[in-house]
Amino acid sequence: MNADLAIADVRLTPILVADPPLLNTQGVHQPYTPRLIVEIVTAGGITGVGETYGDTKYLELARPFAEQLKGRQVSDLNGLFTVADELAVDRSRVSARVDVGGLRGVQTADKLRLSVVSAFEVACLDALGKALGLPVHALLGGKVRDAVEYSAYLFYKWAAHPDGVPAERDDWGAALDPAGIVEQARRFTERYGFTSYKLKGGVFAPEEEIAAVRALAEAFPGRPLRLDPNGAWSVETSVRVAEEVGDLLEYLEDPALGTPAMAEVAARTGVPLATNMCVTTFAEIEEAFTRGAVQVVLSDHHYWGGLRNTQQLAAICRTFGVGISMHSNTHLGISLAAMTQVAATVPNLHHACDTHYPWQSEDVLGERIAFDGGSVAVSDAPGLGVELDRERVEFLHRRWVEADGVLRERDDAAAMRVARPGWVAPSVPRW
Amino acid sequence: MNADLAIADVRLTPILVADPPLLNTQGVHQPYTPRLIVEIVTAGGITGVGETYGDTKYLELARPFAEQLKGRQVSDLNGLFTVADELAVDRSRVSARVDVGGLRGVQTADKLRLSVVSAFEVACLDALGKALGLPVHALLGGKVRDAVEYSAYLFYKWAAHPDGVPAERDDWGAALDPAGIVEQARRFTERYGFTSYKLKGGVFAPEEEIAAVRALAEAFPGRPLRLDPNGAWSVETSVRVAEEVGDLLEYLEDPALGTPAMAEVAARTGVPLATNMCVTTFAEIEEAFTRGAVQVVLSDHHYWGGLRNTQQLAAICRTFGVGISMHSNTHLGISLAAMTQVAATVPNLHHACDTHYPWQSEDVLGERIAFDGGSVAVSDAPGLGVELDRERVEFLHRRWVEADGVLRERDDAAAMRVARPGWVAPSVPRW
Repeated sequence: MNADLAIADVRLTPILVADPPLLNTQGVHQPYTPRLIVEIVTAGGITGVGETYGDTKYLELARPFAEQLKGRQVSDLNGLFTVADELAVDRSRVSARVDVGGLRGVQTADKLRLSVVSAFEVACLDALGKALGLPVHALLGGKVRDAVEYSAYLFYKWAAHPDGVPAERDDWGAALDPAGIVEQARRFTERYGFTSYKLKGGVFAPEEEIAAVRALAEAFPGRPLRLDPNGAWSVETSVRVAEEVGDLLEYLEDPALGTPAMAEVAARTGVPLATNMCVTTFAEIEEAFTRGAVQVVLSDHHYWGGLRNTQQLAAICRTFGVGISMHSNTHLGISLAAMTQVAATVPNLHHACDTHYPWQSEDVLGERIAFDGGSVAVSDAPGLGVELDRERVEFLHRRWVEADGVLRERDDAAAMRVARPGWVAPSVPRW
Repeated sequence: MNADLAIADVRLTPILVADPPLLNTQGVHQPYTPRLIVEIVTAGGITGVGETYGDTKYLELARPFAEQLKGRQVSDLNGLFTVADELAVDRSRVSARVDVGGLRGVQTADKLRLSVVSAFEVACLDALGKALGLPVHALLGGKVRDAVEYSAYLFYKWAAHPDGVPAERDDWGAALDPAGIVEQARRFTERYGFTSYKLKGGVFAPEEEIAAVRALAEAFPGRPLRLDPNGAWSVETSVRVAEEVGDLLEYLEDPALGTPAMAEVAARTGVPLATNMCVTTFAEIEEAFTRGAVQVVLSDHHYWGGLRNTQQLAAICRTFGVGISMHSNTHLGISLAAMTQVAATVPNLHHACDTHYPWQSEDVLGERIAFDGGSVAVSDAPGLGVELDRERVEFLHRRWVEADGVLRERDDAAAMRVARPGWVAPSVPRW
């Protein structure tokens, strides 16, 4: 036991950050989205940071979890899972087939626990790295690349949120047809240098989105393209889309919902299928892999339980000849740094990772993380290599404190009802 | 980059250690067995140690590998595999279906490389832990138990090597029938406190070994028992043995050779099958797991490529509902310490691990590792928590220098020929 590495304090700070009106098959992003900032302070006076989802169901697990950590070593990462296993999860939290807010597959008690553990694991790694003078990647076996490539995450979007909040509009403008998507992609390329493109689909009828993919292929010949309707299509529709634009796509992401449907689409088309909806837990791997339902798993350290679990997932994918890349939900700079550190250690990461980061105008870091040629340089500074701006954290936390109950929960369908009264998240398959 | 953690020097010391006349299906252990001791010295003056096989085919890879490491960080463990991938392997080394000396499955170029990398990975972890003041288990995510249970590894054996070398006999005596095996098991229990027992079989006809299992079950009622004929049986014989003593066994280990045969035995019997012969590389996992050929994988950090690969293997096993435990070849205290450190971090390790350590009267450590109640306490000292006895290393190295060519290669069939001229390793199935 190293007395300096004992956890002396844990701080949990829920915040609300601005989010543009990005459309998906269930609705639209709200003006603000909740995140939870985790800070772990060691007896030696080092602070490590992590972030995860900030909805109530995560906060109600994070609070008792944090209480259990005091006195434990920040290096005891395996022990975090033992502690988490004891957390009681309200059964009403685990009923949904698909998590409404996140479009990220089943919602089990274990997955909720892992989504909380991940922020603490990242914070522990950050603190441990800072205490030892090593970057997080060195604590994960060392980087195998010096930069991690990300893709441009294209969204159909409105110019502004329907209720006029916040008052300032984002500077991306609307994108509601193929020309708008191509224009958005051009701006991504100019600003960040991205060279691969992912379109969040499932918003308009498949023909519209096929046209958008064709327009992108014409505007950016030879560049990797992806389309992700979040399981909105039937098997027949998925097969039809694959036949029409499959040869333009690096992969098709979650065209249909669930492993049986994905397996059928995979068997009937030659297009690689990626997923962050049917393989989102270790328990879902065996069926999906043995049925050949997916060719690329989009990992996400938030719900897989952290950076070391992400490495384990990558090892499983490599063993079974399945590709790996990285999924993104709305996240801030702490998580982008964490994603970059772990991605740098995964030898079999052969696709550009997803990130929402360019859509987030607000961050908790003193200095935003930069993209150069579509990539983020792997920091060799101790820990994650980022520093919190405490004033920003306080500002965003006050917004959370003052928010009414609704905005504290991500709910894309509720946001859509502001513009379209009576809207409910469509049942799938939608087309 | 941390200048103190750069690798300044690598020392490779081949040694020969005394080995008792233990019988297996291919022959008998030679009087001495080769091991390679790896020492990695950092610029900061810290030395980390590892050990692996010491036959020429490993030495001829270890030497050029060591040359590539100088200047690299000891924390750069992923990079070891990148360096190893470049090592040229003599094609004549990779022809055997089963590695003659080791009874541990296929022999591929990649597996040879991993068998070399593992000793360097352990030495790097030992050095890194010592430099940071952390035990190796803390570098692997932290221990989830304070002691690791081992099993008594029972062997049919002669009282002495046939050529009378070395002059001193071991104090175990002969064990060539059920009574001898039970007596050996009693001695293991008295000396070390083991409470589970594994019999190395494939030496005598199955009826003899069935009788030995029955005698053990009578002598030690309720204790976990295992039988391992190293693939010496046909499927029919395997099924017959399983029917006769299956209900007495915790698992049956490699009754038949290869995944198809193991899958057939598994399908026809209810006895869990363990293996260190048909699943010995990541490439072999998919077929074996999808066919249900094995229920327990016996990992071995030496040929799986180190402690972190062992953790990855354990994660794969957990994901596919396959058990995990640990295989042993002849090894010394460095490897027992390494096995204990990694085993302590694997949550799903539910079987006592194998170890040859009690059979090794010679070691390179200043202080031998102790078993208490059949378990080894997990050291919390920095690194592996062991110290080399340099005089012992020098003594054992001089023996290697002075040995003729034959004894530098483990060859159980050659050793058997000393007693039985004309002996060749039997083809399988032997029964």
